[in-house]
Amino acid sequence: MKVHKGLDGVVVSETKISAIVENQLLFAGYNIDELVEKDVLFEEVIYLLWYLRAPDAEELVSFQEALYAQMPVSDTIITSLKIQTRENLHPMSVLRSTISLLGVFDPDAEETDREAICDQSMAIQAKMPTIIAAYARLRRGLDPIPPKQDGTALAANFLYMLTGEEPEKKNVQAMNRSLVLHADHDFNASTFTARVCASTMSDVYSCITAAIGSLKGPLHGGANEKVFDMLREIDEGTLAVEEYLDQKMDRKEKVMGFGHRVYKVEDPRKKHLKRMAQELTASTGKQQWYFLSCQIEQYLKEKKGLIPNVDFYSATVYHCLNIDSDLFTLLFAMSRVSGWLGHIYEQKIEDCLIRPRSLYVGERHEHYPVNRSEQGGMEA
Amino acid sequence: MKVHKGLDGVVVSETKISAIVENQLLFAGYNIDELVEKDVLFEEVIYLLWYLRAPDAEELVSFQEALYAQMPVSDTIITSLKIQTRENLHPMSVLRSTISLLGVFDPDAEETDREAICDQSMAIQAKMPTIIAAYARLRRGLDPIPPKQDGTALAANFLYMLTGEEPEKKNVQAMNRSLVLHADHDFNASTFTARVCASTMSDVYSCITAAIGSLKGPLHGGANEKVFDMLREIDEGTLAVEEYLDQKMDRKEKVMGFGHRVYKVEDPRKKHLKRMAQELTASTGKQQWYFLSCQIEQYLKEKKGLIPNVDFYSATVYHCLNIDSDLFTLLFAMSRVSGWLGHIYEQKIEDCLIRPRSLYVGERHEHYPVNRSEQGGMEA
Repeated sequence: MKVHKGLDGVVVSETKISAIVENQLLFAGYNIDELVEKDVLFEEVIYLLWYLRAPDAEELVSFQEALYAQMPVSDTIITSLKIQTRENLHPMSVLRSTISLLGVFDPDAEETDREAICDQSMAIQAKMPTIIAAYARLRRGLDPIPPKQDGTALAANFLYMLTGEEPEKKNVQAMNRSLVLHADHDFNASTFTARVCASTMSDVYSCITAAIGSLKGPLHGGANEKVFDMLREIDEGTLAVEEYLDQKMDRKEKVMGFGHRVYKVEDPRKKHLKRMAQELTASTGKQQWYFLSCQIEQYLKEKKGLIPNVDFYSATVYHCLNIDSDLFTLLFAMSRVSGWLGHIYEQKIEDCLIRPRSLYVGERHEHYPVNRSEQGGMEA
Repeated sequence: MKVHKGLDGVVVSETKISAIVENQLLFAGYNIDELVEKDVLFEEVIYLLWYLRAPDAEELVSFQEALYAQMPVSDTIITSLKIQTRENLHPMSVLRSTISLLGVFDPDAEETDREAICDQSMAIQAKMPTIIAAYARLRRGLDPIPPKQDGTALAANFLYMLTGEEPEKKNVQAMNRSLVLHADHDFNASTFTARVCASTMSDVYSCITAAIGSLKGPLHGGANEKVFDMLREIDEGTLAVEEYLDQKMDRKEKVMGFGHRVYKVEDPRKKHLKRMAQELTASTGKQQWYFLSCQIEQYLKEKKGLIPNVDFYSATVYHCLNIDSDLFTLLFAMSRVSGWLGHIYEQKIEDCLIRPRSLYVGERHEHYPVNRSEQGGMEA
């Protein structure tokens, strides 16, 4: 019996949402290179991933209005965030719980028709930036700043909610591009988690909560946080970059932000993030992080043939946007949730339980040794 | 390119935890028939699924002591349950949020060595019955009853926490047997969800939260709740059983509690639950539900060749234990969590990201139509 370890290369479903074709990433048929270069709004990409076509101007406006109207969160959600601001809590765990609670309190969470799923998706997509920004402030003892309700787009509104100040145009552009680049990516582990959950016909909030749990893992979205920890460690330490990396690899530790199950030549998202990292570090006087990153990239390529993935340069981009490194994965979630929501709907329509098999390689016993009472075990 | 829809028959990993062999279900090599007939404690089964061998008497006692010591929950958890007792909330969503919060507040949730994972597993396994019983009372406006701390086993302690009264022996036996029967089952959808999440090296709480989300689905654990709704609908309605089922099937509605991806002849768990349903309905004067269930089973077998699965008779068993039907799936979770925890550890040791592929069948576009500003779309 063939064991498909890690389901490497196993095709689970057809999809119309995204594709990796000839080392290029397409969202509903559009190349992400073009989406980034034309500064397409993240909101348009959400529309693309949900409706599988580009909105016209009118559709986009209605979509934005409906989405932005859902951005405010209830007092109950703010209260639940407050009880989760103790020190040393993992922000991804807080996001996981808060999205789960959002589902508990949505009176229509169990509705399953297309319109209801669309409403649930809008609510989750719109409230996630608000929740993340509120949490980022609450844990510093600051009051949350409610979202602007004047048609400000998600990228700008998120940066505004973090500080209460008008964000700079270049930061809004970088934030929007980063949201676009992370929005979807074939059957990655968190998307697949969401789809397995959706295949049981569970509700949308369950699927998103599950996906957040998977994205948290250091072999998936959790890597971007670890990338910046590494940059800082090198920057603050006494070792040369090459020495640091050699020692790390000698200890058989994974270098976060490198390697990918699917991409072997180049991750098509990297070049954009690298350019953004270059521009943002230059304009903020933080070039050290860009140069350090380039040095790491070059050394690992020459020495090990390793290539950077989406997480590597996004760490520096987020740092330049003044985001704490332990919130990086939450920014990833705030973007990827758009893809998750598209995939959940597609999976529900497919209506086929995802239920694989395993190969039993353990022992077989004839009889179970009942000896509790004889040997003085506790009573049931 | 072959699409493995639903991963039907696809083997993802080796396992030593459970197996379906020749229509029999084995836990770490022991046939569940024997585990049930010998009234093996659920705690022994947990040990089996985690350590892959039967405990000797001494090991069992230490394991029980460690587990029972973890049963009490903090005031924060009780408070968070209280804010989730509004009417019409889905109890599985409440369980999902509460287990997620348990992770937020566990200061060692991010520890990854074997001992830490064992501690996290103990805490989750032990607190789940306490959380479910507390919630069942809180939503009725009653104070939670803390677990007994006198060595009382999980099955008896859970029934005690529901009412504050000593449970009858036959009810304890049925509860324990039901916990044993639901404990694990190869790579079912919720277990697989937990494993996908674990494969990213995410933390144990994330994996369990994700699995609860999948178990909630009506094509998985959520079915047992729907089974009793159906029984009640037939009982209260005017249609004969056959008529009711014919109409249901004419409307292309699934009859919950029937059919299984893996079992085509008989679900080995069914006979035990059927016998338990027979005995418990007889001793509580609720035979109507047993007879009605038998009638449904017979008709669907003759007419459609459908066979009952684990959910069908467990609905009547839980009803006889005075459990509200919307809590049935939580009882399933309270048992299956033992298997999930075993699988999470096994997956973490395997250390291989579960990341399949999809087949893109959507359109391909040359260019993205940028027309927002020209056509009056909102400003970014």
